Amino acid sequence: MKVLVWNENRHEKKNPEVSGIYPEGIHGAIKKFLTEAGHDVTTATLDEVNHGLSDDLLNQTDVLIWWGHLAHDEVEDEWVEKIQQRVLEGMGLLVLHSGHFSKIFKSLMGTTCDLKWREADDRERLWVVDPAHPIVSGLGSYIELEKEEMYGEHFDIPTPDELVFISWFEGGEVFRSGATYKRGRGKVFYFRPGHETYPTYHNEKVQTVIKNAVNWLNVTDAHQPDYGNSKAIESISKKG
Amino acid sequence: MKVLVWNENRHEKKNPEVSGIYPEGIHGAIKKFLTEAGHDVTTATLDEVNHGLSDDLLNQTDVLIWWGHLAHDEVEDEWVEKIQQRVLEGMGLLVLHSGHFSKIFKSLMGTTCDLKWREADDRERLWVVDPAHPIVSGLGSYIELEKEEMYGEHFDIPTPDELVFISWFEGGEVFRSGATYKRGRGKVFYFRPGHETYPTYHNEKVQTVIKNAVNWLNVTDAHQPDYGNSKAIESISKKG
Amino acid sequence: MKVLVWNENRHEKKNPEVSGIYPEGIHGAIKKFLTEAGHDVTTATLDEVNHGLSDDLLNQTDVLIWWGHLAHDEVEDEWVEKIQQRVLEGMGLLVLHSGHFSKIFKSLMGTTCDLKWREADDRERLWVVDPAHPIVSGLGSYIELEKEEMYGEHFDIPTPDELVFISWFEGGEVFRSGATYKRGRGKVFYFRPGHETYPTYHNEKVQTVIKNAVNWLNVTDAHQPDYGNSKAIESISKKG
Amino acid sequence: MKVLVWNENRHEKKNPEVSGIYPEGIHGAIKKFLTEAGHDVTTATLDEVNHGLSDDLLNQTDVLIWWGHLAHDEVEDEWVEKIQQRVLEGMGLLVLHSGHFSKIFKSLMGTTCDLKWREADDRERLWVVDPAHPIVSGLGSYIELEKEEMYGEHFDIPTPDELVFISWFEGGEVFRSGATYKRGRGKVFYFRPGHETYPTYHNEKVQTVIKNAVNWLNVTDAHQPDYGNSKAIESISKKG
Repeated sequence: MKVLVWNENRHEKKNPEVSGIYPEGIHGAIKKFLTEAGHDVTTATLDEVNHGLSDDLLNQTDVLIWWGHLAHDEVEDEWVEKIQQRVLEGMGLLVLHSGHFSKIFKSLMGTTCDLKWREADDRERLWVVDPAHPIVSGLGSYIELEKEEMYGEHFDIPTPDELVFISWFEGGEVFRSGATYKRGRGKVFYFRPGHETYPTYHNEKVQTVIKNAVNWLNVTDAHQPDYGNSKAIESISKKG
Repeated sequence: MKVLVWNENRHEKKNPEVSGIYPEGIHGAIKKFLTEAGHDVTTATLDEVNHGLSDDLLNQTDVLIWWGHLAHDEVEDEWVEKIQQRVLEGMGLLVLHSGHFSKIFKSLMGTTCDLKWREADDRERLWVVDPAHPIVSGLGSYIELEKEEMYGEHFDIPTPDELVFISWFEGGEVFRSGATYKRGRGKVFYFRPGHETYPTYHNEKVQTVIKNAVNWLNVTDAHQPDYGNSKAIESISKKG
Repeated sequence: MKVLVWNENRHEKKNPEVSGIYPEGIHGAIKKFLTEAGHDVTTATLDEVNHGLSDDLLNQTDVLIWWGHLAHDEVEDEWVEKIQQRVLEGMGLLVLHSGHFSKIFKSLMGTTCDLKWREADDRERLWVVDPAHPIVSGLGSYIELEKEEMYGEHFDIPTPDELVFISWFEGGEVFRSGATYKRGRGKVFYFRPGHETYPTYHNEKVQTVIKNAVNWLNVTDAHQPDYGNSKAIESISKKG
Repeated sequence: MKVLVWNENRHEKKNPEVSGIYPEGIHGAIKKFLTEAGHDVTTATLDEVNHGLSDDLLNQTDVLIWWGHLAHDEVEDEWVEKIQQRVLEGMGLLVLHSGHFSKIFKSLMGTTCDLKWREADDRERLWVVDPAHPIVSGLGSYIELEKEEMYGEHFDIPTPDELVFISWFEGGEVFRSGATYKRGRGKVFYFRPGHETYPTYHNEKVQTVIKNAVNWLNVTDAHQPDYGNSKAIESISKKG
């Protein structure tokens, strides 16, 4: 399976705290454990030519992972539209953390995707509410993260097709932190954790979720339906 | 309740068959039975200044009904965005028939909203699959329309929050012809029938659905959630 | 609208702490504010003849509210089956708190309805996650209860048709504390709070939810579908 | 993967037309193509001791397939309860055709599972409405069956978690003919076709669906949640 990890990669350049945690960028950290899991992983970042994207690369990608935060508006609409089209054709999309405000996620959801937030070292506990879901295989009852940014309800998203995780935050809030959607012939998973100043993507359980999600997001053999003007299969009676 | 019926109103100008069926336009026909049902109904059409819309009009509208077909692309993006924002704030939206391809519906769905179609005088039977839903109150088991345009699966929409009707077509197809969604604090209902060359909006059961839908779409007292940076409610422990 | 409030009414007889909080029983407290809201309210309790139920009473009831805890097994199967049949015919059912383990709720869900619990004076905060839902009208962002029994995930229920509230608990857990279902032509709402040793049903916001829920649960004019052997509407071709 | 195919096997004994189509029983026909697909398949039938079931057999079964019709009431409650428990623990369940009225399906659904029906050689066309679902992989747009028993809406089931197929019938009806549910840690799939007097289970596309479904129903590594009395993870403040 071909996985493309896209990262804004701006915090890593500006903030030594972030580059200390992710010396090869958030994309590099994710690439590492997905490669070890046997996937064929490519990375792309905002400041590369065409944001590191090309038609060929997108066409070959089975699952795209998206991390963005500071510069959602700098992602050009042309590429957002191409990604959306690929999702509708069957490419999986894993949107991480602050990617809730990315153009691609908002385009696929149709809502503001707004939420409450706070950077205050909240403890977060992501409770599994769908224990039969392949995305939570091997996790146990919850994931605990010592420090994370808080995201709180109301989260302005469409009703998820499946709700997989609900987060508890130390400061008193809850959040729907793992949610799946189908769009066209593609699948989408939003997974909340991953603020850049915390080592969240080094957490083993978080890595398990991302590895499980990549497998679940990969749609194989999705039939391309026929659309448009269509002949009758059965005979149609003559009406007055 | 204030209802705004928006109609493209182009078929009515070009095709005597259509203006014969709807002498006051599709919007006029819908306005008539909704007014008789006690609603305060305004109409607007594509070729008026600003498509007949204004900020004030949208802000006062509780439920917007949308019929479009030939000229979806002529609806200016500015107004699509304003309508989308109003839906997310709580305005109900009833999308009729070929409105499946309108900019506003596609923006709220995030998918192509594509489908199969055929103009061949198919008989259509809309079966009620959610008999407890307020939208089907008073209908019985199904609505039968002697002649309609066929719309067939696959219909490229997100999984409906609620599926209310499934259509049977004489030529051999089926269609999810009544589907509800929540988006933000607003509700959306897509209702399939209403090809311009058939007297569908004069059908009593179709009128019942539209009247029921208008009531169901009206969200009262939807709380405006707080978004953005948010103080902790509970105390947060100091971490290392 | 005719509302029937059913209560086990055992804690009230055995525990002075409970009868101190609810001198007329939990059913009496609920009856009071629903009566003030204009409903025609009857009560019934476990130890009455036939648990206070009769065929006539059930047939006239639009919405049934159910509170039970210690003695779920003492409710006779005959009455559970009659209640289930009435729900399937269109009677609304509001299941409160420890009613998650009642026979009627388990019968309608098909699962164990098991959960984590703790009696330790946890603070509970019920966050609204569906701000457009009629059940949360007038509430604001959340309901805070100073002390409540904790119920924690995993809650073994089918995926709710609509998830309305998610609870935060001081001890570190979350819970899907407001969930709606359709069953047959009836609607079901499960609402978590209401441990007998806390004055939860005196809380104004909790009362608002129950009043909203009663209105939402009332299905009017639900069509009784035809079932069984059925003649063809269209002609069927002769096959070889 | 261990698959158990359970069949009532009464029509096969009584009706030469049925035994002509399925000389080794419906269970034998299903066993054959699932064995060829590499599964470890066992069969069991109503009239064997304990309906061919044992605790060991159920405990080892990953996916159970159920076909019943004439004698749902002869299946002993004890075994229905054991099967339900196994589903809630993670065993997949594929309910075929007239199994909609089986005790096990009704127990898991909580509704009457009633429907319209007709034996009149209707042509059936099962349209794929969820083209990204693994269950429809390799099928194309629809399955056509020359002759089948008609099942028509309203089908009294809970809202499916996922709706995969909608059937068109020649006589004018539609039906939700492929529907998935999660119950506990197990998955359930209802698949409509398979009247005993037609060679439906010899149809390649029907076999493809059953093979896909068996794979999809197999839940691996579903975490067993902790239920019951539970210590606080976070400290709880002393209240007044």
